[in-house]
Amino acid sequence: MDISPDNRTHRTKGSETAARVRGAALRLFAQNGYAAVSMREIANEVGVRPGALYNHFSTKQDLLKHLMLSHMAALMEAWHHQLGNPSASDPLDTFVRFHIRYHLDRADEVFISYMELRNLEPQNFKQVETERRKYEAILTGILEAGSKAGVYAVEDAKVTTRAIIAMLTAIPSWYRDNGALSRQQIEDLYSTMVRKSVAPGLPYEPRENG
Amino acid sequence: MDISPDNRTHRTKGSETAARVRGAALRLFAQNGYAAVSMREIANEVGVRPGALYNHFSTKQDLLKHLMLSHMAALMEAWHHQLGNPSASDPLDTFVRFHIRYHLDRADEVFISYMELRNLEPQNFKQVETERRKYEAILTGILEAGSKAGVYAVEDAKVTTRAIIAMLTAIPSWYRDNGALSRQQIEDLYSTMVRKSVAPGLPYEPRENG
Repeated sequence: MDISPDNRTHRTKGSETAARVRGAALRLFAQNGYAAVSMREIANEVGVRPGALYNHFSTKQDLLKHLMLSHMAALMEAWHHQLGNPSASDPLDTFVRFHIRYHLDRADEVFISYMELRNLEPQNFKQVETERRKYEAILTGILEAGSKAGVYAVEDAKVTTRAIIAMLTAIPSWYRDNGALSRQQIEDLYSTMVRKSVAPGLPYEPRENG
Repeated sequence: MDISPDNRTHRTKGSETAARVRGAALRLFAQNGYAAVSMREIANEVGVRPGALYNHFSTKQDLLKHLMLSHMAALMEAWHHQLGNPSASDPLDTFVRFHIRYHLDRADEVFISYMELRNLEPQNFKQVETERRKYEAILTGILEAGSKAGVYAVEDAKVTTRAIIAMLTAIPSWYRDNGALSRQQIEDLYSTMVRKSVAPGLPYEPRENG
């Protein structure tokens, strides 16, 4: 491998460009929608010629897939990283706080990841779905283990997973810094709600009247 | 007013066309995104000439606004209609079941209503937001009244409203008829989770360790 200074500079510039392309694509897709954005516009935003994009991403579809997969990869890495120093003693509490913190500053990624699923070609959709399921499986595992231990009461761990993730993932769509609630208050509030929602020994039974 | 048979027929055909335009626009926007769909494509889908669309909707923006506002109006009307015959004795239970039932067969409307908010012009966005807040205020009111009565324990009724609605509104994105759970089971499961999430007298307090 050639690691002469010249080539290093070239590779660094190349990966810098790739990062700027990803950033510009993320912003433009989130703002205008994948379908409405052209590779030419992304290139303009980055300040390079359209041809330079194709050194990094062969198609706009490739770029979208890359954005979604790298979002999922970074999320999984962050989860594994925090395991060494969890934020709470209850794993459900830890998961809720992690999910909120991770997504709160990534509103565009969240928006794109949900919004543009329909624009992924089937093979790419499958790949992204596989990664998403791995992440969901973390929460499902926590719920199943807790249910077995009698700490939680969950009727269907997979559906409960979807409910909790939907609830948490919507936060970046309305949360603003300097709003009525601090990040810590948001975390506390959602963690309490989520843990109560799966608490055992509550009086509610499936309805009787209908 | 001219109510001669000829004019009646004409008006009926006109509103039939408008309904078909709305239906086609809804499908196409949901499938391809607002930005990627032209008035010409909508006309093709309906089987009329583009000019015929403009008798009903002056612009594509007008059509989008109309879709969102009529979705909200129909939702509010359905809520008021069911008040005469609520599905449960607990108003929170009633709200959860209503929201799930109403949205379960309207995946396209739900998708559009969230997804295409960014494509509404500011004035139209404001109008749609106003209607959305009216609907959210129903749930907030239920939570506030229940908290006052000591039936629920809610820290922040507005944030809790957003959490519950996000949780419920995600169901149409994954629910399929003939899946593992029936509609009734979905309703029961979510109603239990939601009511537990706001139940008083649970051991969870905001975390101590951090």
